[in-house]
Amino acid sequence: MNVGDRHYRTIWLNGDGWSVDLIDQRWLPHDFRVVNVNTVDGIAVAIREMWVRGAPLIGVAAACGVAMRMREDASDAALDAVWEKLHATRPTAINLRWALDDMRNLLRPLPVSQRAAAAYRRAAGIADEDVEINRAIGTHGLEIIRKIAAGKKPGEPVNILTHCNAGWLATVDYGTATAPIYLAVEAGIPVHVYVDETRPRNQGAHLTAWEMAGHGIPHTLIVDNAGGHLMQHGMVDMVVVGTDRTTANGDVCNKIGTYLKALAAKDNGVPFYVALPSPTIDWTVKDGVKEIPIEERSGDEVSLVWGRDHDGAIRQVRISPDATPAGNPAFDVTPARLVTGLITERGVAQASPEGLRGLFPERARAAA
Amino acid sequence: MNVGDRHYRTIWLNGDGWSVDLIDQRWLPHDFRVVNVNTVDGIAVAIREMWVRGAPLIGVAAACGVAMRMREDASDAALDAVWEKLHATRPTAINLRWALDDMRNLLRPLPVSQRAAAAYRRAAGIADEDVEINRAIGTHGLEIIRKIAAGKKPGEPVNILTHCNAGWLATVDYGTATAPIYLAVEAGIPVHVYVDETRPRNQGAHLTAWEMAGHGIPHTLIVDNAGGHLMQHGMVDMVVVGTDRTTANGDVCNKIGTYLKALAAKDNGVPFYVALPSPTIDWTVKDGVKEIPIEERSGDEVSLVWGRDHDGAIRQVRISPDATPAGNPAFDVTPARLVTGLITERGVAQASPEGLRGLFPERARAAA
Repeated sequence: MNVGDRHYRTIWLNGDGWSVDLIDQRWLPHDFRVVNVNTVDGIAVAIREMWVRGAPLIGVAAACGVAMRMREDASDAALDAVWEKLHATRPTAINLRWALDDMRNLLRPLPVSQRAAAAYRRAAGIADEDVEINRAIGTHGLEIIRKIAAGKKPGEPVNILTHCNAGWLATVDYGTATAPIYLAVEAGIPVHVYVDETRPRNQGAHLTAWEMAGHGIPHTLIVDNAGGHLMQHGMVDMVVVGTDRTTANGDVCNKIGTYLKALAAKDNGVPFYVALPSPTIDWTVKDGVKEIPIEERSGDEVSLVWGRDHDGAIRQVRISPDATPAGNPAFDVTPARLVTGLITERGVAQASPEGLRGLFPERARAAA
Repeated sequence: MNVGDRHYRTIWLNGDGWSVDLIDQRWLPHDFRVVNVNTVDGIAVAIREMWVRGAPLIGVAAACGVAMRMREDASDAALDAVWEKLHATRPTAINLRWALDDMRNLLRPLPVSQRAAAAYRRAAGIADEDVEINRAIGTHGLEIIRKIAAGKKPGEPVNILTHCNAGWLATVDYGTATAPIYLAVEAGIPVHVYVDETRPRNQGAHLTAWEMAGHGIPHTLIVDNAGGHLMQHGMVDMVVVGTDRTTANGDVCNKIGTYLKALAAKDNGVPFYVALPSPTIDWTVKDGVKEIPIEERSGDEVSLVWGRDHDGAIRQVRISPDATPAGNPAFDVTPARLVTGLITERGVAQASPEGLRGLFPERARAAA
């Protein structure tokens, strides 16, 4: 989407035709840095050190890494080695593995001489498919926003609350939860976005707020504590968030704190939507609260806060006593009963086994 | 309570018999500073600049300021002038006004020669009354903890979640929400406290965590987003928070984010208690959500985070883009239907008009 008056994706092929440019997200929102990456080692660092993050974007970056390697050496040994090297960067990222498998399965049967060109084509294809899925999510979500706008006075914005960053920075473009917002802006519907800062890693304050500012979308940063109060007072028309994993029952695993917002939305009659590309549906899991193990991350993410000091230096400050341990569950599960609808690339599904089976019958069958 | 192996109140008479020592809370948790204040101007600065905060503590500090002034000049004019000066430091603090009125009403009828001594006696009395009220809240809350402990295996701690700081640092000693916790520790009941960091001002991370560490109470700092997940997984046995104002119906106005924790407690069958000294009951207000105006504070409290950098300097860092505005409602209202009980100095009341009238019939009558 736009950064000021220029359009960007998060990753793209450099003008040289073989290396990759990407937004180094570690410095956002304080510094917008585009870096050129021209080695597989560079791609591995960019994924491991989270210059790029978000499942779809990681997958595309890995695919680009495979293509770069094929240009140097397209042997089976090189293909296996680059799979291993890139998979090790974030071994729990499902999309990373999916993209690497997809590339290897495509390339292995090809003659060595054709592998590099095919790899670049497929990497570009994965990126474009991500954009298309997100645009499709956006068009379905746009209809929800359009209906809410129809009930408002002319010019009155639709107030949308979002948590964490399921924005274009987590994908190649558009984002998932933000796609309906960007398409509403394209359609001329006035919107205003409440951005949860999303402690502990502050992806809302760092990334979603920066996206909104860059694209010129009216928005307000709030602490994660504030959403319930805003909903009590009619200041939020809808909530839309992303998800890391959705169960076959419609339970939604997403960034810690999502569940609290869903409770507040339910208590105040505010519609609560989850935007997701269908590959993040886990057809093997039913009860999300009972079955999904929640990653416990380092307590330092809670105790130490990154920011820019008044001299412009980016640094960490400690907010708690040295003697105080911190707990840091990274995700929570929002039960399906609190979810108004799941916005997918095929349409909006009820958060229920029937709703998901209805939109994705072939996948439900395959998993059964 | 204890700071390491020594007991402290938040404010006390210096050994000289007339000036005041207090904990300068601005530097907590990074630096524990006790300062001597020996002028009324010093007291005014300490209240205005929030060296001391919390309604009961502000009241006691103001009473001490009046006593100091009476020692220099006990005339009617000096009494009125000190009332005005101290009231202007935080004009919306109800306890501040109450303490100043109490002092003036006591002193005015006395001969000028007796006013200084009487003022010091009354200031000490107000401090002691605060401690007694909090101890009484603690004894009633202790019974709740004791019952939960009785249902646990021997040695297994009672897990208590609290939000913000309604601890001894907000009062003279014991605190309100923390009083039951300190008394449980005194009684030998094992407890473990989940401390919400409480964005935006981080009073949980700065103050409650420091209190727990100082008194040697097992505790874990968590982000405000985490409590719902912990409750879903049976990791919280009870929630106890303080309140700035409780309505005659039992609605509870407290630090922003309290409402979200109450929703999660209700959704998971976790008891949600509010500890309060009865003067914070506002008998004139019925529907808290509709009637209580919520203070909107500076967005800088959201965008800028205080902490200690790795060189030991205490500084602020910005977490969001310069172009991003921040909203900062400071409190929210938790409807009575989500509150299990109100722990007061007279016992535990149901959060309802009947419950409050039953414990405080004479006040309910006076307000009717």
